[in-house]
Amino acid sequence: MGGDFAPGPNVAGAIEASRHGFQILLVGDEAVLREEIAEQGGLPPNVHLHHASEVVEMDEKAASAARHKRDSSLRVAFELVSHGQADAMVTMGNSGAAMASGLFACGRLDGVLRPAIATIFPGSAGPVVFLDVGANVDCKPEYLLQFGTMGAALTRAAFAVTKPKVAILSNASEAEKGTELTRASAELLGGAGSIQFCGYLEPGAMLEGEVQVVVTDGWTGNIMLKTAEGMVEHIKGLMREAADRNVLSQAGALLMKPSLSAAMSELDSSEYGGGLLLGINAVAVIGHGAADGASVARALGFAERVARAGLLDRVRESVTEQREAVEMPHGGE
Amino acid sequence: MGGDFAPGPNVAGAIEASRHGFQILLVGDEAVLREEIAEQGGLPPNVHLHHASEVVEMDEKAASAARHKRDSSLRVAFELVSHGQADAMVTMGNSGAAMASGLFACGRLDGVLRPAIATIFPGSAGPVVFLDVGANVDCKPEYLLQFGTMGAALTRAAFAVTKPKVAILSNASEAEKGTELTRASAELLGGAGSIQFCGYLEPGAMLEGEVQVVVTDGWTGNIMLKTAEGMVEHIKGLMREAADRNVLSQAGALLMKPSLSAAMSELDSSEYGGGLLLGINAVAVIGHGAADGASVARALGFAERVARAGLLDRVRESVTEQREAVEMPHGGE
Repeated sequence: MGGDFAPGPNVAGAIEASRHGFQILLVGDEAVLREEIAEQGGLPPNVHLHHASEVVEMDEKAASAARHKRDSSLRVAFELVSHGQADAMVTMGNSGAAMASGLFACGRLDGVLRPAIATIFPGSAGPVVFLDVGANVDCKPEYLLQFGTMGAALTRAAFAVTKPKVAILSNASEAEKGTELTRASAELLGGAGSIQFCGYLEPGAMLEGEVQVVVTDGWTGNIMLKTAEGMVEHIKGLMREAADRNVLSQAGALLMKPSLSAAMSELDSSEYGGGLLLGINAVAVIGHGAADGASVARALGFAERVARAGLLDRVRESVTEQREAVEMPHGGE
Repeated sequence: MGGDFAPGPNVAGAIEASRHGFQILLVGDEAVLREEIAEQGGLPPNVHLHHASEVVEMDEKAASAARHKRDSSLRVAFELVSHGQADAMVTMGNSGAAMASGLFACGRLDGVLRPAIATIFPGSAGPVVFLDVGANVDCKPEYLLQFGTMGAALTRAAFAVTKPKVAILSNASEAEKGTELTRASAELLGGAGSIQFCGYLEPGAMLEGEVQVVVTDGWTGNIMLKTAEGMVEHIKGLMREAADRNVLSQAGALLMKPSLSAAMSELDSSEYGGGLLLGINAVAVIGHGAADGASVARALGFAERVARAGLLDRVRESVTEQREAVEMPHGGE
């Protein structure tokens, strides 16, 4: 039921993803879903309904939604994972509420100090995992160390990168730049033998493909993600205006369209359908609120793939290994 | 002498700007400059040489460059302003070193806690002043209040906006979001009668033109600026690839080129040639290291315009007025 245009794209995405053969549960208000399903011509045999009476709205406060809406589609989807009735969950809804509901229903993975939201940028040389993009506004160096560890586990599980390079986002590459947080985090990451740490990375170098994991605090990550998304939208708008300016440019735009669409689709992180919650005891993919059916289908495929690749075990192992190697404050707070 | 390709673009820019009729001093190594000037066909009568024996390199540490290179072109240019021999200075060089040299040579304006670097974004509805983009990594709420005051003074002096709206950059528009810093700053800005404060603004809304001044700390501002610049470069690269993909798209790109160049030039903040140092006792425009002659000329024109519009007096008055209206810790630290 999550997302700006729910449940249309979610139902369409489930139908599209069903051809991959895995089982899909559509969680939400049965009456609403049945109506949408009828409009879309019915469900394939491997897509099933699972009723949930409530919906968490996009602008609802995360903690209160997670606490009070116990029969929301979001919460119920996490409960299904928690009870072993599903291997992963996907939502196009409120990401803060997803994190809070996931924590309520499934808990943290052992040893994780702070779960994080990881997004996947389409880098020139392959996917770049970037976290945290919003779960933790205030961070400590130990969190960033774990973000690096969890991000590396994700790149191994999802993209088969065996020795991912990890960097810290900063305003310059020199070690003495950055903030107190980045400098202390760099010391921790540099000392963690399990991580191939390569120092600071500037925002402009993020997509160049020299590293596969970039960590930052949830405030900076969220601002950066929203800036990047905003610039893409703004430039697309300028390009539409340019295409419409006169007859010549209209003709030119028509000729360029296939190549330009292909190029611009590289910017679309919906290649994977969304980001991931890392550090909770569930595989959870969070897509964009404005996702269409194709994007929902990719999110479902991605969730199935990383669950099958054993993401949770990889994250758990990496976190344990790293905690045993480095002295760290135990158990979080 | 500052910038990646100095002194070529600086000399070219001075020659181009000279047609506006104001007096221009080219500060730098006389031998080097004379050679460049000869290559460019000589100087118009209103462009003059002023010798300075040293150069601050682009990657040199700001504080040490400012302290030790007392005869650098950067330092000497500020000294000229400090001694009343120039009304403003322009550099395409190291912005950190510019801030440090400006402070050494000219000092802060009375009552300013922390000078800041303001950049000017080309918003859909006119210029948007954004600060701090790098001078102050660690900020206090009082600094952000002053950034708002100084930014508003700049929009009045430079763009004749009489009642600029001021916002704080945040990750969401709700007042309870953001960080401790943004929340405390919002309270200060909301209580400052001299400022038309309109709360939080998300990065994606920056260019939409609803506000004319956006404040943030120097860390977040620098990351955001570099992300935006990085996205523009990345997308331009994708567009070039798209244009080159096949014969159809090559033809299309040719037809679209004039409209597209016009549209993309809106993204180019070099319309004003650069950002401004705000809070020091000098009008100082800092352009991009990779600036070409046209961009240097615009920076010169912009510096002359804001100096003539009395930027320093406006900033000084606004800061004094705001400090008298709100109780604030005196004299900085």
